[in-house]
Amino acid sequence: MNQVIETLLNHRSVRSFTDETLTDEQIRLIVESAQRASTSSFIQAYSIIGVTDPEKKARLAEIAGNQQYVIDNGHFFVFCADLYRHELIGELREAEVNATLETDEKLLVAVIDVALASQNAVVAAESMGLGICYIGGIRNDMFAVKELLGLPERVLPLFGLAIGVPEHVEGQKPRLPLEHIYHENTYVADAEQLKQELDAYDATIHDYYAARGSNQRSDTWTGQMGRMLSKPTRLDVKDFLKTQGYSKQN
Amino acid sequence: MNQVIETLLNHRSVRSFTDETLTDEQIRLIVESAQRASTSSFIQAYSIIGVTDPEKKARLAEIAGNQQYVIDNGHFFVFCADLYRHELIGELREAEVNATLETDEKLLVAVIDVALASQNAVVAAESMGLGICYIGGIRNDMFAVKELLGLPERVLPLFGLAIGVPEHVEGQKPRLPLEHIYHENTYVADAEQLKQELDAYDATIHDYYAARGSNQRSDTWTGQMGRMLSKPTRLDVKDFLKTQGYSKQN
Repeated sequence: MNQVIETLLNHRSVRSFTDETLTDEQIRLIVESAQRASTSSFIQAYSIIGVTDPEKKARLAEIAGNQQYVIDNGHFFVFCADLYRHELIGELREAEVNATLETDEKLLVAVIDVALASQNAVVAAESMGLGICYIGGIRNDMFAVKELLGLPERVLPLFGLAIGVPEHVEGQKPRLPLEHIYHENTYVADAEQLKQELDAYDATIHDYYAARGSNQRSDTWTGQMGRMLSKPTRLDVKDFLKTQGYSKQN
Repeated sequence: MNQVIETLLNHRSVRSFTDETLTDEQIRLIVESAQRASTSSFIQAYSIIGVTDPEKKARLAEIAGNQQYVIDNGHFFVFCADLYRHELIGELREAEVNATLETDEKLLVAVIDVALASQNAVVAAESMGLGICYIGGIRNDMFAVKELLGLPERVLPLFGLAIGVPEHVEGQKPRLPLEHIYHENTYVADAEQLKQELDAYDATIHDYYAARGSNQRSDTWTGQMGRMLSKPTRLDVKDFLKTQGYSKQN
């Protein structure tokens, strides 16, 4: 197994960083790595905002549900799907682009584009010995994030990414068995078989939570998911998408 | 610069592979690497389908616009956003999960989840000397892909990924300048400034297309984007999302 795959397999989210800030060189390598990810038909439909202003970080932490590691980290990035420059291209080229930008297809394109870029950023950061944590919590109030960061239309702040020198590294949570998520030629949709696999995985996760070094608890994966999915959240995401000019197709 | 970042910065899509197939061990490492990516609140909202059946590969190539490298590669994966197992969890746990699964928020969660996983798969593959090409073209007919791969509701086949031993490696297309996509604290939305930056980038891309080893042409980035975005495509993606139980929130 090579060093790259070791880095990938060794991933765990880090939620506690030292106060060491990233160097400009580290930030540059992380962003350049992000930009090298594949991009759908060369569209490059994303922007990245580095947030260093303490007041803005504090506000983002508040939006994300008072997560201290949004404030205390080596650098904080906000990853945005971005078709704003493509709207400008419509003006530059006198091309009618808006109908295209507003399709659900282009929503998918932009969201996939920015996620591929961000994962390259993560891999780059971890290869330098840094830790990372994705912050989906900024979607608790995308309208507020838009206001805070001065985002124009066609820009969606999808998630934050805290990066820094790890102060504390937790264990790795076991993933679903490979056989459960990987299919060959045909999706195995047999509900009874899948439920049996989920039962077995529940036992694995139960043992993990019971045995881990800190924050031990009695829980299962399906229990955790069942509770989480019983409460619809972020119902204003739909409005925000339309406000920003996404998914407006009839 | 370390080996991992070198791998990331050296990326280019490969569209011509030898007939060498991936080993089971390579496939396992690629899928395990994918599974180690961060996942929103541990939701693990994706599945991966390896397609080896020649007839299915041929049909996927046809759907994707007759791309030969969908057929001729070392292994072909289809990456799917997947909340089907979460619907089963609703049954297992007697939890009302459907309203949550149908929010736009959960569409974003699942699409981001699978994209993070796929990019880890890509980095793992490239670290082993393999080449890759994302195949967004399977979204030309997601209904047909659903039928072909036997996908149940709550599963979205978002893109393919061809992996194999590169037969021919092309040059790297210059990306947008880092300063254009990376902002500090506030998004710089000044249209005139951005248009000037796009003009400069057009010159870079023009030179790249004029000078590259094969398939030389006279083009610019904004010209290419303007033409592409003038024609709305894949207008049935919206219907497909709803058919599969996504983005049905009022």
